[in-house]
Amino acid sequence: MLVLVLFKVTSLFLQFIIFTGDVTFSQVVNEVMRQLEGAYALIFKSPHYPNELIACKRGSTLILGVNELSGQKSGKSFNDVKALTANGKPKELFFSSDLCAIVEHTKNYLAIEDNEIVHIKDGSVSILKFDHDKEKPASVQRALSVLEMEVEQIKKGNYDHFMQKEIHEQPHSLTTTMRGRLKDGAVLLGGLKEHLKTIRRSRRVVFIGCGTSYNAALAARTFVEELTGIPVTMEVASDLLDRQGPIYREDTAVFVSQSGETADTLLALDYALENGALCVGITNTVGSTLSRRTHCGIHINAGCEIGVASTKAYTSQIVVMAMMALAIGSDQISTQARREAIISGLFSLPSNASQVLKLDSEMKELASSLIDSESLLVFGRGYNYATALEGALKVKEVALMHSEGMFAGEMKHGPLALVDENLPIIVIATRDACFSKQQSVIQQLLSRKGRLIIMCSKGDASAVNPGGSCRVIEVPKVADCLQPVINIIPLQLLAYHLTVLRGFDVDQPRNLAKSVTTQ
Amino acid sequence: MLVLVLFKVTSLFLQFIIFTGDVTFSQVVNEVMRQLEGAYALIFKSPHYPNELIACKRGSTLILGVNELSGQKSGKSFNDVKALTANGKPKELFFSSDLCAIVEHTKNYLAIEDNEIVHIKDGSVSILKFDHDKEKPASVQRALSVLEMEVEQIKKGNYDHFMQKEIHEQPHSLTTTMRGRLKDGAVLLGGLKEHLKTIRRSRRVVFIGCGTSYNAALAARTFVEELTGIPVTMEVASDLLDRQGPIYREDTAVFVSQSGETADTLLALDYALENGALCVGITNTVGSTLSRRTHCGIHINAGCEIGVASTKAYTSQIVVMAMMALAIGSDQISTQARREAIISGLFSLPSNASQVLKLDSEMKELASSLIDSESLLVFGRGYNYATALEGALKVKEVALMHSEGMFAGEMKHGPLALVDENLPIIVIATRDACFSKQQSVIQQLLSRKGRLIIMCSKGDASAVNPGGSCRVIEVPKVADCLQPVINIIPLQLLAYHLTVLRGFDVDQPRNLAKSVTTQ
Repeated sequence: MLVLVLFKVTSLFLQFIIFTGDVTFSQVVNEVMRQLEGAYALIFKSPHYPNELIACKRGSTLILGVNELSGQKSGKSFNDVKALTANGKPKELFFSSDLCAIVEHTKNYLAIEDNEIVHIKDGSVSILKFDHDKEKPASVQRALSVLEMEVEQIKKGNYDHFMQKEIHEQPHSLTTTMRGRLKDGAVLLGGLKEHLKTIRRSRRVVFIGCGTSYNAALAARTFVEELTGIPVTMEVASDLLDRQGPIYREDTAVFVSQSGETADTLLALDYALENGALCVGITNTVGSTLSRRTHCGIHINAGCEIGVASTKAYTSQIVVMAMMALAIGSDQISTQARREAIISGLFSLPSNASQVLKLDSEMKELASSLIDSESLLVFGRGYNYATALEGALKVKEVALMHSEGMFAGEMKHGPLALVDENLPIIVIATRDACFSKQQSVIQQLLSRKGRLIIMCSKGDASAVNPGGSCRVIEVPKVADCLQPVINIIPLQLLAYHLTVLRGFDVDQPRNLAKSVTTQ
Repeated sequence: MLVLVLFKVTSLFLQFIIFTGDVTFSQVVNEVMRQLEGAYALIFKSPHYPNELIACKRGSTLILGVNELSGQKSGKSFNDVKALTANGKPKELFFSSDLCAIVEHTKNYLAIEDNEIVHIKDGSVSILKFDHDKEKPASVQRALSVLEMEVEQIKKGNYDHFMQKEIHEQPHSLTTTMRGRLKDGAVLLGGLKEHLKTIRRSRRVVFIGCGTSYNAALAARTFVEELTGIPVTMEVASDLLDRQGPIYREDTAVFVSQSGETADTLLALDYALENGALCVGITNTVGSTLSRRTHCGIHINAGCEIGVASTKAYTSQIVVMAMMALAIGSDQISTQARREAIISGLFSLPSNASQVLKLDSEMKELASSLIDSESLLVFGRGYNYATALEGALKVKEVALMHSEGMFAGEMKHGPLALVDENLPIIVIATRDACFSKQQSVIQQLLSRKGRLIIMCSKGDASAVNPGGSCRVIEVPKVADCLQPVINIIPLQLLAYHLTVLRGFDVDQPRNLAKSVTTQ
């Protein structure tokens, strides 16, 4: 037999592997895997090997879902998907890069590991592992895991879109994030408990993430620094890898990823593990690679997130990091009153989130006034710089409008040149220590005839907009460091309505994927 | 006598101070200063006090230029500016917030300090200092400083605009930045020598700056980390202040400001000094507040920069930070070969800058193709993420086009949604360790029909643009960590031409000032 495998290595070069003689399908795939670079998850079919299918992966995630079909489901046709096990019971098998995709079919799954090959032949499944030295693969026994997720979580219910549903779910998701973790004025985080002393001794806390997860960490940075006294370094995962930035044994590296499968974040995790840092994971996905490979961590328990644009995961991530900061700093007497105020602020978050969701129709109306804009700027500072970045990212990724989040304090170093009567600018000016600076920013923007939309705390409309010429969004006031959790919600609503009004797909934005499992 | 002083405290409230009886002008001004908050530099005139003028400042910069008029200049009319000293010689006096503004009149100047009042009365000048407890001010004796600057530096010569002149001056300014500082394969930085040991022991290097100076520090970050082994934290000055971020005695805080008078940077300096950090200044202005108040520092010697958009200061700042990194890391054997390669790369920078300036007409043509675009994205990574930010900032501040610099590695976490056949995207893909990742970014952008402009190393056109469908900018290859110095130049030229073609003022962009001396 002669098997020919063709690679497109780059756009310029092609590569062949020619197999002759008696090779098995798994040997062919193993040789192909040895040639490939980078991260991937692949499924192979070949006319040379009928009734066989092989799946494998490196770096990326690959889930095998297994559904044992019982007699009750006998109405279902088995034609293509039928698979018979040794004991004769029929099975359905599913391959997916995301657990959410299989939950409506089965709750039994297996996370395939690097260098494993799943070989399906004539209805039976075997998992093989190739060693570098040995010619023949070894067969591997693996137990199935059970998915903790309900099918309702992946249905839209009464909403038009998942993004909309997930925005409106936030009072609930914030509650489940905190459930059982705040007791008698103290924070209980089982996953961190053993490691708190090590974290307190670290030279730095390094937050590592991509996209929205990075923004959530940025929102948390200030209060982590305040409550722990440990300096925080922010790292975009891909940039840490590009720069081969310094990570030391004395560092605590905190990895944030909703899916727990973000390729760059996982590669950065490998890098930090190699460098000996204590690695903490913050993820929404039990059983994800991130939760398996970190030393310890916290699940955000926000429930399955389907919309590509992350919304409820963002707010739950911030809340989890707030609880983490409270736990790390819990041995400090000097910040006790501050900690208690934050804990009581956490309790009030779900009801405040419900309050702010009432802005829905107001945000829809605002969106209709922005529908034809080419650009949008969002100015924030302090706790709410992250809100500016995340609000702009939401508008960018779903409404396909060029929006940019900026430091209000950097305005005079460039961005002010863009200000005229046409460009819409959102200024976040809720009450905190930076309030008077933001008032001054607003006055300077108004004196350049800027077209402003001002977000302020309830009752502050006249303080931020004395002339009455701007549109004002009033949001409930919560503890200053938790304000980003509330402030992002109107911007999520704005991005959502802007997308619908502009006629784009909310849940599947152009060119984007939910979990970025490749570099 | 009754003197009424009116303040506009906010846009809502007014405040009066009423003086009765026998008060002097300086007492009135002193009382006004006590009421004012924030940073300012003010000059007072009053009909109540004819032939008197008072100048004072807090935080901001105020320069008093003094020109003793000799007999040779007798052709000049003295009408208003004439001032007679005690010894009867006529004098011209100048107030300015920037030394560049007085160089064509005089080289003798005095930097006014906080809480000093310059009182000019009937042609004589006195400097008074008010103490909090004492009613009467004390007279202060101050010696004049001599400005080290030539008038030619502030003339346009054969160029149409200062920005253009300063871009084209870079082969020269880079040479003067390095002059006398690289000898026998070693770096000599007199201003740092005494403090190198302390810097080597620091827990962190914290880079602090605003706008272009921040971007220069960001460009330097990677090689500072590489050559020193000390982790670098980046801080936008206003954000450090807003967050009251952690600065410790074990930190080395490096402040970067072309003018040395940037308000936020100086306030951050005060904050770092209070917290006990070793403070290093990097500035273009001898005698500036930054150079006076830091423990040590390096002048970039790029020559006077007049255009509001910083160009030659940016490249000289990077070179100075490269020399600083070489000096700090000079005790490490393991990086010796790398250091030597960088030093030889530094020597070749001026000639490579001359080479890259030959792209002028090509950039003008490119600019003409972008003239009607609403937005521009610039994708960089690794060493050249800063290039992306700075290139976008230049376009934003002078060409008034919404441009945004981005991590190429973050593309899939949002920005990719914006990509279509209309939005121009500049991708920086010169040779370094990230090159293959950037090749993959280009392919992904092309598969979404992105309108790409690719910057690559000379000879790499076919490697980055195999289909030949994109516009390619080829730049000379230098040591990877110095590549940002070369790569920014075509983007400076692009921003310049785009501004001229769009009909905007290059040297005085809308709403912006050269030195941002207020918050």
